[in-house]
Amino acid sequence: MARAKNVLWIMCDQLRYDYLGCTGHPTLKTPNIDAMAKRGVLFTKAYVQSPICGPSRMSFYTGRYMRSHGSHWNGWPLRVGEPTLGDHLKSIGVRNVLVGKTHMAPDLEGMKRLGIPPESLIGVHVAECGFEPYERDDGLHPTGRPRPKYDDYLRQQGFEATNPWEHWANSGAADDGSLQNGWLLTHADKAARVPEEHSETPYMTRRAMDFIAEAETDGKPWCLHLSYIKPHWPYIAPEPYASMYSTSDMLPVMRSERERQNPHPVFGAYMDMRYSRNMARDDAREKVIPTYMGLITQIDDQMGVLMKFLREHALLETTMIVFTSDHGDYLGDHWMGEKDLFHEQSAKIPLIVIDPSTDADATRGTRCDALVEGIDLAPTFVDYFGGKVPGHILEGRSLLPLLRGPTPSDWRKVAFSEYDYAMQDVRLKLNQPIERCRLFMVFDGRWKYIHASGFRPMLYDLETDPEEFLDRGDDPDCAGIIARLQAELFDWALHPNDHITTPREKIANYADNQLQMKGGILIGVWDEAELASIKDGMAQRAKM
Amino acid sequence: MARAKNVLWIMCDQLRYDYLGCTGHPTLKTPNIDAMAKRGVLFTKAYVQSPICGPSRMSFYTGRYMRSHGSHWNGWPLRVGEPTLGDHLKSIGVRNVLVGKTHMAPDLEGMKRLGIPPESLIGVHVAECGFEPYERDDGLHPTGRPRPKYDDYLRQQGFEATNPWEHWANSGAADDGSLQNGWLLTHADKAARVPEEHSETPYMTRRAMDFIAEAETDGKPWCLHLSYIKPHWPYIAPEPYASMYSTSDMLPVMRSERERQNPHPVFGAYMDMRYSRNMARDDAREKVIPTYMGLITQIDDQMGVLMKFLREHALLETTMIVFTSDHGDYLGDHWMGEKDLFHEQSAKIPLIVIDPSTDADATRGTRCDALVEGIDLAPTFVDYFGGKVPGHILEGRSLLPLLRGPTPSDWRKVAFSEYDYAMQDVRLKLNQPIERCRLFMVFDGRWKYIHASGFRPMLYDLETDPEEFLDRGDDPDCAGIIARLQAELFDWALHPNDHITTPREKIANYADNQLQMKGGILIGVWDEAELASIKDGMAQRAKM
Repeated sequence: MARAKNVLWIMCDQLRYDYLGCTGHPTLKTPNIDAMAKRGVLFTKAYVQSPICGPSRMSFYTGRYMRSHGSHWNGWPLRVGEPTLGDHLKSIGVRNVLVGKTHMAPDLEGMKRLGIPPESLIGVHVAECGFEPYERDDGLHPTGRPRPKYDDYLRQQGFEATNPWEHWANSGAADDGSLQNGWLLTHADKAARVPEEHSETPYMTRRAMDFIAEAETDGKPWCLHLSYIKPHWPYIAPEPYASMYSTSDMLPVMRSERERQNPHPVFGAYMDMRYSRNMARDDAREKVIPTYMGLITQIDDQMGVLMKFLREHALLETTMIVFTSDHGDYLGDHWMGEKDLFHEQSAKIPLIVIDPSTDADATRGTRCDALVEGIDLAPTFVDYFGGKVPGHILEGRSLLPLLRGPTPSDWRKVAFSEYDYAMQDVRLKLNQPIERCRLFMVFDGRWKYIHASGFRPMLYDLETDPEEFLDRGDDPDCAGIIARLQAELFDWALHPNDHITTPREKIANYADNQLQMKGGILIGVWDEAELASIKDGMAQRAKM
Repeated sequence: MARAKNVLWIMCDQLRYDYLGCTGHPTLKTPNIDAMAKRGVLFTKAYVQSPICGPSRMSFYTGRYMRSHGSHWNGWPLRVGEPTLGDHLKSIGVRNVLVGKTHMAPDLEGMKRLGIPPESLIGVHVAECGFEPYERDDGLHPTGRPRPKYDDYLRQQGFEATNPWEHWANSGAADDGSLQNGWLLTHADKAARVPEEHSETPYMTRRAMDFIAEAETDGKPWCLHLSYIKPHWPYIAPEPYASMYSTSDMLPVMRSERERQNPHPVFGAYMDMRYSRNMARDDAREKVIPTYMGLITQIDDQMGVLMKFLREHALLETTMIVFTSDHGDYLGDHWMGEKDLFHEQSAKIPLIVIDPSTDADATRGTRCDALVEGIDLAPTFVDYFGGKVPGHILEGRSLLPLLRGPTPSDWRKVAFSEYDYAMQDVRLKLNQPIERCRLFMVFDGRWKYIHASGFRPMLYDLETDPEEFLDRGDDPDCAGIIARLQAELFDWALHPNDHITTPREKIANYADNQLQMKGGILIGVWDEAELASIKDGMAQRAKM
């Protein structure tokens, strides 16, 4: 393991699984990412712990399910004291560095209660979710919000405006050159008003390379999270990507009329959201999807730039490289926009891991069908750096064994994902109490069971119905399958990693009665003779 | 509510429900506690959240279930940042003060990670579980451990020893005056080697009165937790209490031979623990129980002292008084010693609440049969002091409505309790993995269902079998009842108060789309016309 030096963890935002060449897209060009898959393992069943940015990312960054980290929605602060990947890496001397988006909201009240100044070293570590913020940029910058460094960069290039991010990089240009509101779907086919080199994706790539170059002088191992904002909306790409794809390159829409007939109430409410109604329009898909594809090819080109840079700096042989996403995008499939529910378009992500170790040579270019969760990355990184994985805190499992051999026989049999719609119109439409807006996915590789508090479950059979058109949640023939997956959920719910202060080793080493004797606290011993025999036994064991 | 000034929260340790005059004990004398019940409400179905000191207390002190606070065992640190009653009271200007035991173990690693010096004001608050430690004394002081102030006190009275707590107050005197090891059950019938006034219970009462007298000069409202160590073992009482009761005063033992025939594996393993085998001996019961009773009458006498003091200081009219315990003691019933499982002897506690408000006059001297949990006290106190109960953090419910009128119709229908035996021999006997040692009680007032990870459930019908001799967990006739209570557990497990940084009011006030529009982030809007109509709608609503 002498080669384990760094981790470069690349994350896209809202990139769904099937929008890469190597995952089967027939027209989308991602040669550099495809080449990465050839150098590593492509996971074909990787699921996020919540199909929305903030909660999904908090699971990635803590290695814990949403029910454990408690940040159910974008902007809900991560509770102070919740251990992060950054804490685990810090304890083994690894820098955990951010370039791009995290969606972290600090628990300022909790920090105040504990007397942690937000500007202190520890305060920044806590407030930035365990990252050293080389460049923090969450990527949605309407006017009036705190400004990103990227604004300054754009101004330096001559793109003056109150809000250069919006005015230039995320607005479209009409044929007559006039500005078109880039937030609106109808303008998704317009090109961004900046040259490609000044758009967000290459800017962030360069910032990552700046960090890597600087870190060479430092010599400490690092985990760099390069976290792109795209292909997340606003769906605006610069040329040549804006006009790289046309409607003829689009995948056929995946939806069925039967999905709208008497749907599950939660699904029904989501199909009725404005963004779903709009994205279900063919003209919206025709505007958005070619641009979404262009944004992905732009990222792919940046992967080419980045890999070349790593090669030139002789870092490929010491750096684990991960390429993934925080969730998908329905893009009008299932009559839906955005993400939110657990169809493959939303909850499944691309995941490529390149392990530079020679131990991983045999798996290069292979696919792994094991059920993988976003929370597996944190333990993978700790493991890769040679640290001891804190299994009483982390709820995922290290992927190293899967990168270096066959999937262990005791690998997880079901994957979990969660969603809380308390902050959405759906809650009001369904008239659900705030505390009862929770959805849980249990997927065993074939059957996808969704528990919806207060409603019947949903159920999809991906073997006979890979498109997930047929909800069998009320099919009496499926009662046994529902009972089985519900039992899995029950068991999962009863066994969270909630006791994060007490490592399992401590428990394993504690022989209750024996230690209590040693400590001088004697519980329920009858008399001196019994006490003497206990002490004798202890002495015997000590000699063994 | 002008009278809501203070809370005096008295807790005994290991005092079971039925060992008071007012709860039905035929020979035990507790006239002062009985008088308290006449001035307040006696709750007849109050259950702890875990039938063992540390986890039970952490639930009392946080107002949260064990699965939420994560401290599963004595000495498992409470995670830093876990909000406590002390935090909630602090925010409304109330002092939260400790005299006696908490069993708190600070999360020193977590505090270090967050840069909190343990000796700082905040550090002490965190390390002491939100209490201002006027006198901290956990009551088990074998030689070699940090010493309590009580040791100094004993020395001042002339009781010299390396360990005065053990040597004098918790050892017995044989007829010839020689010292007998007070940890051993066989010596439970010996009198302590200190006069009554110097034993722990009156000492702690005096320390509480010291605080109350001092606090009068301060004028701030306070919640004083007077937390006695007794009648917890070592079962050693000073005279006259040591010889106050005899075997003829004992309740008949509650056990049945059928309990030992093919018992549930977990129950079987507990019956086989040393302390159970010893406490199941008649000679052990005859040594221990009269002393246990004497220790309770001693506490009762101290209640007389304390109430007189409060009356003389005109505090009775402004002070809510709570008398309770952290769990029970099997005392040989069910062939068990100690606590651990969920029989009434273990999981049920006495709970008397005297609310000084005139609104509570109608309920004085009444009994309340509602299902009450230990976690209800924290919200009760916040409510009593006029604070807003943080319902997204606290998992209990304020008892004020029950103290001032009939039980609300939406009161809980089931009570929950938890237990983790990972630290006990039982784990080894049953060969259970560390993470799978969890027990959960669901009690609906009649049926007591116990979920045991990896085993069949246990089930008792307290209507037809109030002694809990007949485990119906494998009775096919009970399948429907088991399914119902398991569904309650499932629902409970899926809906913890895990998102402690986001109050429900914030969620309720957030009209998702509308606010996102206001923030300038537009999700899935088609074009300018639609955007204009949304803005029109918002303007209309704003005018309304």
